[in-house]
Amino acid sequence: MRFIHLSLALGLALGAAGSTRATSESDGDMAVAYRQSAFKLIYWNFSKMGAMVRGAAPFDATDFAQRASRVAALAEQLEEGFPKGSETGGVTEAKPEIWTHWDDFTAKLDDLKRESAALREVTASRDEDAMKAQFQKVRQTCGACHDEYKAD
Amino acid sequence: MRFIHLSLALGLALGAAGSTRATSESDGDMAVAYRQSAFKLIYWNFSKMGAMVRGAAPFDATDFAQRASRVAALAEQLEEGFPKGSETGGVTEAKPEIWTHWDDFTAKLDDLKRESAALREVTASRDEDAMKAQFQKVRQTCGACHDEYKAD
Repeated sequence: MRFIHLSLALGLALGAAGSTRATSESDGDMAVAYRQSAFKLIYWNFSKMGAMVRGAAPFDATDFAQRASRVAALAEQLEEGFPKGSETGGVTEAKPEIWTHWDDFTAKLDDLKRESAALREVTASRDEDAMKAQFQKVRQTCGACHDEYKAD
Repeated sequence: MRFIHLSLALGLALGAAGSTRATSESDGDMAVAYRQSAFKLIYWNFSKMGAMVRGAAPFDATDFAQRASRVAALAEQLEEGFPKGSETGGVTEAKPEIWTHWDDFTAKLDDLKRESAALREVTASRDEDAMKAQFQKVRQTCGACHDEYKAD
């Protein structure tokens, strides 16, 4: 994987120079790549659910449920992608306010976790209207966090 | 997210040129970004488990179990990242043999899914030796597929 090669090459290159910042810089870059990957997977699944919700794709309750389960699981994996030291690692759209308003940021992450877990739950009913309504609640938690903490 | 902006910009740019290949090229790039993201998340979690297995980090059975669960779920999400048309999308290390030997490739993906699901199961026992042994089986399925289908 490019990610591994890049990180390894970076680590070795910086290590060879004897820099004590090597590890933290490399860790920051890896954290940025990790969280961006998690967001990409969330977006991949969420956008396919969105197409069903707005009628751009046929509503498939089984597929919708599978993607809801993925998003709920991925939401649980986001927080470890924002360690201190990853404010400036790699190319990031994460605003520095994340780390200066950490409690508010993690509260917003908790909103996503709670609402996406609720969406995973509601898919068991196969109630299309309920699934679509809960999808919108998840979407609002995405927007609420992006408004504050994601650079345009 | 950079991913969305890039895809959107690419789609708009190609769409404006009136190319009929715009959609498929954009879809290919998105599939490449999606599968690379899934592999990054697998690697992120798998490497932390690997550090515990080889003694480079303290063995934490709860953390190990959580990461095993993530990897098993992510393994299930890989196949849809390799649609026809994504052979040359983006910058990919996926060899074209994936699509000419599709049955063998998906059999190797099935090996990963089976062994990572078994690892998720075995973590319930909290038996450290059993967890480490099954981790190696998962690792072998990674290597078997990379040997054939991933460019160096």
